[in-house]
Amino acid sequence: MVDHYDVTDRIVIEGIRPSTPNGYPAKAVVGRATAVSADVFRDGHDVLAARVRWRTRGNGKGKWSTAPMRPLGNDRYQAVIEPAEIGAHEVQVEAWTDRIASWRHEIAVKLAAGQDVELELEEGALLLEGALSRADRADRVRIETAIASLRNSQAPPESRLSGALEPALMALLDELPDPSDLTRSAPSPLWVDRERAAVGAWYELFPRSYASPEQGKMGLAGATDRLPAVANMGFDVVYIPPVHPIGRSFRKGRNNSLDPTPEDPGSPWAIGAAEGGHLALHPELGSFSDFDAFVSRARSLGMEVALDYALQCSPEHPWVKEHPEWFHHRPDGTIKYAENPPKKYQDIYPLNMWPSPGPGVSPEKAEADRQALWQACKGIMEFWMGHGVRIFRVDNPHTKPFAFWEWVIAEIQAANPEIIFLAEAFTRPKLMARLAEVGFSQSYTYFTWRNTKAELQEYLTEVALGPKADYMRPSFWPNTPDILGGILRGGGAGAFRLRLVLAACMTPSYGIYSGYELCENQPMSDANEEYFESEKYEIKHRDFSQPGSLVPFVARINDIRRRHPAFSDLGNIAFHHSGNDQILCWSKVDPAADDVMLMVVNLDPHNTHEDTLGLDLPALGFEWHESYEAFDELTGMSFMWTGANPYVRLDPGLPAHVLHLRRHGRGGTAA
Amino acid sequence: MVDHYDVTDRIVIEGIRPSTPNGYPAKAVVGRATAVSADVFRDGHDVLAARVRWRTRGNGKGKWSTAPMRPLGNDRYQAVIEPAEIGAHEVQVEAWTDRIASWRHEIAVKLAAGQDVELELEEGALLLEGALSRADRADRVRIETAIASLRNSQAPPESRLSGALEPALMALLDELPDPSDLTRSAPSPLWVDRERAAVGAWYELFPRSYASPEQGKMGLAGATDRLPAVANMGFDVVYIPPVHPIGRSFRKGRNNSLDPTPEDPGSPWAIGAAEGGHLALHPELGSFSDFDAFVSRARSLGMEVALDYALQCSPEHPWVKEHPEWFHHRPDGTIKYAENPPKKYQDIYPLNMWPSPGPGVSPEKAEADRQALWQACKGIMEFWMGHGVRIFRVDNPHTKPFAFWEWVIAEIQAANPEIIFLAEAFTRPKLMARLAEVGFSQSYTYFTWRNTKAELQEYLTEVALGPKADYMRPSFWPNTPDILGGILRGGGAGAFRLRLVLAACMTPSYGIYSGYELCENQPMSDANEEYFESEKYEIKHRDFSQPGSLVPFVARINDIRRRHPAFSDLGNIAFHHSGNDQILCWSKVDPAADDVMLMVVNLDPHNTHEDTLGLDLPALGFEWHESYEAFDELTGMSFMWTGANPYVRLDPGLPAHVLHLRRHGRGGTAA
Repeated sequence: MVDHYDVTDRIVIEGIRPSTPNGYPAKAVVGRATAVSADVFRDGHDVLAARVRWRTRGNGKGKWSTAPMRPLGNDRYQAVIEPAEIGAHEVQVEAWTDRIASWRHEIAVKLAAGQDVELELEEGALLLEGALSRADRADRVRIETAIASLRNSQAPPESRLSGALEPALMALLDELPDPSDLTRSAPSPLWVDRERAAVGAWYELFPRSYASPEQGKMGLAGATDRLPAVANMGFDVVYIPPVHPIGRSFRKGRNNSLDPTPEDPGSPWAIGAAEGGHLALHPELGSFSDFDAFVSRARSLGMEVALDYALQCSPEHPWVKEHPEWFHHRPDGTIKYAENPPKKYQDIYPLNMWPSPGPGVSPEKAEADRQALWQACKGIMEFWMGHGVRIFRVDNPHTKPFAFWEWVIAEIQAANPEIIFLAEAFTRPKLMARLAEVGFSQSYTYFTWRNTKAELQEYLTEVALGPKADYMRPSFWPNTPDILGGILRGGGAGAFRLRLVLAACMTPSYGIYSGYELCENQPMSDANEEYFESEKYEIKHRDFSQPGSLVPFVARINDIRRRHPAFSDLGNIAFHHSGNDQILCWSKVDPAADDVMLMVVNLDPHNTHEDTLGLDLPALGFEWHESYEAFDELTGMSFMWTGANPYVRLDPGLPAHVLHLRRHGRGGTAA
Repeated sequence: MVDHYDVTDRIVIEGIRPSTPNGYPAKAVVGRATAVSADVFRDGHDVLAARVRWRTRGNGKGKWSTAPMRPLGNDRYQAVIEPAEIGAHEVQVEAWTDRIASWRHEIAVKLAAGQDVELELEEGALLLEGALSRADRADRVRIETAIASLRNSQAPPESRLSGALEPALMALLDELPDPSDLTRSAPSPLWVDRERAAVGAWYELFPRSYASPEQGKMGLAGATDRLPAVANMGFDVVYIPPVHPIGRSFRKGRNNSLDPTPEDPGSPWAIGAAEGGHLALHPELGSFSDFDAFVSRARSLGMEVALDYALQCSPEHPWVKEHPEWFHHRPDGTIKYAENPPKKYQDIYPLNMWPSPGPGVSPEKAEADRQALWQACKGIMEFWMGHGVRIFRVDNPHTKPFAFWEWVIAEIQAANPEIIFLAEAFTRPKLMARLAEVGFSQSYTYFTWRNTKAELQEYLTEVALGPKADYMRPSFWPNTPDILGGILRGGGAGAFRLRLVLAACMTPSYGIYSGYELCENQPMSDANEEYFESEKYEIKHRDFSQPGSLVPFVARINDIRRRHPAFSDLGNIAFHHSGNDQILCWSKVDPAADDVMLMVVNLDPHNTHEDTLGLDLPALGFEWHESYEAFDELTGMSFMWTGANPYVRLDPGLPAHVLHLRRHGRGGTAA
């Protein structure tokens, strides 16, 4: 059978980016330039033209917008699009044989070689006649004039041709797809988020630690009073662990012990008690109006609240009695608690997210149970969205089915495209990527365990410059309540400064867990990277005004991030040479905003290091031997540098330069 | 809607290799081990099991074969399959949650920690009961015994468990897919070729140059007499340019001149004359019985004939009159000849492989024309297959639609899966890869223009170790009638030796064009890499017995390739360190055959170079400090080496070692 080919099988369009490996939506940010590229080619040597078209794809479909694609070389073409709305979009690449451009090239070469071009002039006239029918009425006269000129056999060839080579006409013709072999890629889905899905500084706090009973304040009221200080540090998002009632049976005591005192508050992740489950508020945190006030105060300070979403239950969670079918059962009829043998977590009952048929459970019953459970889980989010939550930080998403996340995120975002999901995907690389692919807006990463120069360069190259960057947005956290890692333990305040600069100045989204600014650094043990006297199991009272606090440093970093648009992009990172293994140098450049930032960090928290750098000046927008100002946003000091090899020296106390590189007279001094 | 998920959506199977970017068949070789790998994972921490199944997929479907997949780490699994037939196959990856393996792990840890495992023993009994129904009758007793033992509450736990941990039972259970979440990938197509599609030494000759009229021999008869010498050099395939009548109008003379003498024979690629077109034989070459005798003689010498397949016509080709609709027309009604402006190729009419509707041509007529043309093009191949041809070397395939090749190769191979297609895809990288993807068995490559150490390492890494190796088989040609490149021009015999060693010992399929063994090296000019007095335009008479001929060297190389199975694989290449930029060192290892080859080449044809190498000995199967014999297959000399840093010195005259590395007493000396 020869008959299953169409002429549109002739042009190949493939390798479209942004994309994901399995056809899920790639991600973009509203109002931000997004490069769309593809391989476009066909047999032979004809010139091809290509463009991108895109539209919203929600309940109704929007109007197509288009942008011309330009050749990048090696048969790759690129356009820059700027989606104007959040939500689901589709993107298509269109290509066609640009016979007019091929003809222009051919006749120009022949004319230059002095060949007879009578036939070529008539071929051009015929091609323009073909374009006539596709042009707007307003443009037709222009084309008809060019045709008449091509056929004016009294004039010399150069003059007959000139009308067809007029720039305005060429531009007009370049934008007219030739329907005879116009070829379209399959539509690529693209999810467009609001900016906070990609850019933001997060701060994690346990509300209950801010209760001041002596003032009659419940946890949330006290935490609300803490918000101005957080906002003053320049954070965009306040993330709070679960706020629900905490189970009492097998409750964990201080330092994760199995024998709590009656006063121990328990871990917020042991969700559910007699007072209620995921739809309830822990009584000691306050009332729902306290919760609403917390959210509202954050908003008035320019911040958002991210709420923890942890799908697990304590043995007293109401679901255990109401829906035993949502849990795993053992042969003796008991519900299976969490284990990592030989460790037992008897305070936690994992949900059975995909109930199986079995004795007494028909396939229909198992399926009905799954649907009811998934709907209930979705209901939790909707409930808290009703209390103003627009961001969920999802606990251990890799222990629930990817299909569940795919479904629930799509369901929630179909009605509320502004909702953001951060995956606490501290798991294996392929699971982390899959969670991002099926819909999570952001992901925790391995940054926490990347310390050396080689590790950091390799990891950033992977997450910021590799294909996963099309759909996985890394969030860098130097610490979390579970992880006090690497040099933070013994590196002193300098280590906290340098890890903060790395996190905040490498990726657009990053966060710290409170206590970081006080350089809290006592681990459980050398082998256990959790905190000693972890806030997960006890109330912590901190004095944020203590001497040596990094509060001003944190505020400075977040201020720099806000003032410099270069920090809002992920893929604009580039590393520069240092021969010193402890000196890491990278840049972030926003060419449209003319914003050039260069970071230099001494990774050794114990020793001073110096080096002569090797900057890729053209990548920074400078000439190889140009002089320029390097203004250090951290210290306010200014250096005049010339050429690609400036000298730097960093001591462990202030181990970083965050430099704004400016041409003379480029203006703008930092506050 | 929650109801569109099935439990088989829970396990992710992705990134299957071998594969092609757009779902065309990957390639394998019959009887040769082929690794099939995939990412396999699900949420949570349960142990997964996976296997590959495959079957033929022709007119009927074959029986499935299966092979267990083993974890490679990082959630990747691999099986080795060995297809037993040539032709179309399909491959599927199957995975399931191995609940028995998860249970075995859990109970073992708990037992070791001294925990009570009564419930776990019963859980195991229930899991084994589930397996009972899936097992063969013969295996059931074994499983039932293990169940009874697990439930024997009189015995201590270790003893109750021991039956379930018996290796034969574990192996049996490992092979039993659990139907409750058995998940299958979409079938991946795999094309299985005979060995010659992947491995072979090719020799190109122009039959007409071997005519000896004084002996009454036509071209083919003379070329037939030349075949024993070609076979003695160890070649597997004799490739001959087009054998059809050659056009007379605008015929090219010597050195591609426009003013031929009446004696000039013309280029064989200007196909078609009064005597006929692609289905005819040039009268001066002889009769069809001469052609059949040529093919038959080659076969009796253990060689095959590859025929050129060039879809283009001279102005006198019968199709020009019979089917003017198969060509491009100009406004004055003339047929468009080939051009690369300002160059004109008036002796060649390109075929219009995809006729368009237009004035006087309805869409239906254009489509009928296309189908008729494609069928006629297919008919050419079938005609020559009728004369014993099983390999086609396809001229300039990138100037005809990919869809045509996809169609014609599939059509031909459906009936004749032994047919091999070599693409002369000297074109841009993405077109070259696409031709391989849509079906070509092999492809010419950029090897001809890769000369430096860095270029060669990078190129081999791409074509032998990158994802394209799943479907594109590179063929390395140091020269062709069109290309006399790089150091061959001024490097003397040493350059010819070293480029031969590179081509022959890096890739399983390689070829040379006759004259190479005589070190013919006069280019048209510095800028034009064609040969001066090219055989394309004139008859060449060569004295292959002349002093300095490389015939013995070529024979030696081909003999080494045949005796060492390591040279039959593409992906087994590994580079080893040399600090000298002119010394390239690589290995080819066939572990199954215990065949370890190490090549060291001096890339500089003018100077002697020496170095202390840095071998990755474990990759070669040796210990870091082991002593081993390095037997040079080129010279018969033997070196005793110890450790990873042997010293080598190569002079430009014999610029290569081809070393067989052997452990003491491993036996076998080369002939």
